Amino acid sequence: MNKLFIVKIGGEVLDQHEKLKHFLSDFAKIKEAKILVHGGGKIATQIGDKMGIESNYIDGRRITDEQTLDLVTMVYGGLVNKQIVAKLQSMKCNAIGLSGADGNVISAKRRPVKHIDYGFVGDIEAKDVNVALLYFLLKQNTVPVFAPLTHSEGSMLNTNADTIAKVLAVALSKHFDVRLIYCFDKSGVLLDVKDDTSVIKELNHHSYKENLSKGVFANGILPKLENAFDAIDKGVKEILIGHADNLIPNTQARTIGTLITK
Amino acid sequence: MNKLFIVKIGGEVLDQHEKLKHFLSDFAKIKEAKILVHGGGKIATQIGDKMGIESNYIDGRRITDEQTLDLVTMVYGGLVNKQIVAKLQSMKCNAIGLSGADGNVISAKRRPVKHIDYGFVGDIEAKDVNVALLYFLLKQNTVPVFAPLTHSEGSMLNTNADTIAKVLAVALSKHFDVRLIYCFDKSGVLLDVKDDTSVIKELNHHSYKENLSKGVFANGILPKLENAFDAIDKGVKEILIGHADNLIPNTQARTIGTLITK
Repeated sequence: MNKLFIVKIGGEVLDQHEKLKHFLSDFAKIKEAKILVHGGGKIATQIGDKMGIESNYIDGRRITDEQTLDLVTMVYGGLVNKQIVAKLQSMKCNAIGLSGADGNVISAKRRPVKHIDYGFVGDIEAKDVNVALLYFLLKQNTVPVFAPLTHSEGSMLNTNADTIAKVLAVALSKHFDVRLIYCFDKSGVLLDVKDDTSVIKELNHHSYKENLSKGVFANGILPKLENAFDAIDKGVKEILIGHADNLIPNTQARTIGTLITK
Repeated sequence: MNKLFIVKIGGEVLDQHEKLKHFLSDFAKIKEAKILVHGGGKIATQIGDKMGIESNYIDGRRITDEQTLDLVTMVYGGLVNKQIVAKLQSMKCNAIGLSGADGNVISAKRRPVKHIDYGFVGDIEAKDVNVALLYFLLKQNTVPVFAPLTHSEGSMLNTNADTIAKVLAVALSKHFDVRLIYCFDKSGVLLDVKDDTSVIKELNHHSYKENLSKGVFANGILPKLENAFDAIDKGVKEILIGHADNLIPNTQARTIGTLITK
């Protein structure tokens, strides 16, 4: 099977022009088949503030009401996505921006209301991915760039970018030898969140559960780890969590970060 | 050759939820290969006002400065485009939203500064269209939905939607039997702009020039007519200018509007 890199980028890299350019230039250099998934960064909140759109939270979680849905559709699907695509094009990388609605590439179910109504939020599974379209695009050396948006019943839906990256990795693992790389602004999963040199080099189910019970992991990394082990369980071969600056070594044998294995 | 309808929609239909839904439902019913090109409507100005972005005009023409470019990239490429795509998907029409940067489907040249600096505006020709990508998408029954945006040298560019529709029609005329349909909120090209029943049923080069010299045409219709005759000269078979409500008859033999012929 051919190699496929699925790279998720989020956090402060997206908000800083020079850092983003450097990251995209590294991404453009990857010779194998590749997909980029981006988050939103702080810019949606900044633009929302200018427009007088209030951010609503319940129990610390953002609620996507109708106004917020329009905001993230504009900012993630328009501004951030198209700026990344235009920059990649200038770096000779034939990027194509996609939300889940485009070509029905990821359909979703609107999250049902249980205790909390999260609003226009989409939940997705690997079976919701239009593998045929992605397979064709990748075969043509086109590079899908995903905004964190899906759709259902005529409406766009806000969807977590880490989850989109995972679901794509699971769906494409039947056709490609997938390495999923979560890039962020730390060097990997840390034993001590204040010490960037305390990277855990490898985590398997056993050592993950052991460390989890000891309370080693910072809150911020837990959703990434849950996504990562879910991906491993569903057939993704390799998952790497590392710094955005280390993308190039992390597409090669010499990895710098945390490797997630079975 | 197979039939291909290229439909441009602009004006007030885009700003009115029910009208847009009705139009898209008609568009979804077209059985032949099809492409939709949309303008921006008034929503970009409304959102710009909320964000405190000033609209700058020179000699009555809008200037796309950096802030305005971000605004139209968000609103046209994100909000309007993705809302249309999600609605079409719910109508069983497999739409895929595209700016010119996506898959390098339309590259542009930034308009050179002569007397006026229009800012981030892209000029395009038929040779700038990635016909291979569009041909593949159409063959798969995927329906390209274009936002009025192109790109050059790493930057998005604002580009007139009428011109995008024309350039696509010219570029695809070698592969398809193209009918280009400009939809707006009048029933066609009018002899008297105040009388919606005064539709000119057919215009060819000769009658166009004759009416032009008599000053028959309203200012608003002139750019559409210039694009239409340029398309005819460059090999597009049929061009129709008509009301958004008449899309269905205008894809059939019984047309209601102005037919542009050689």
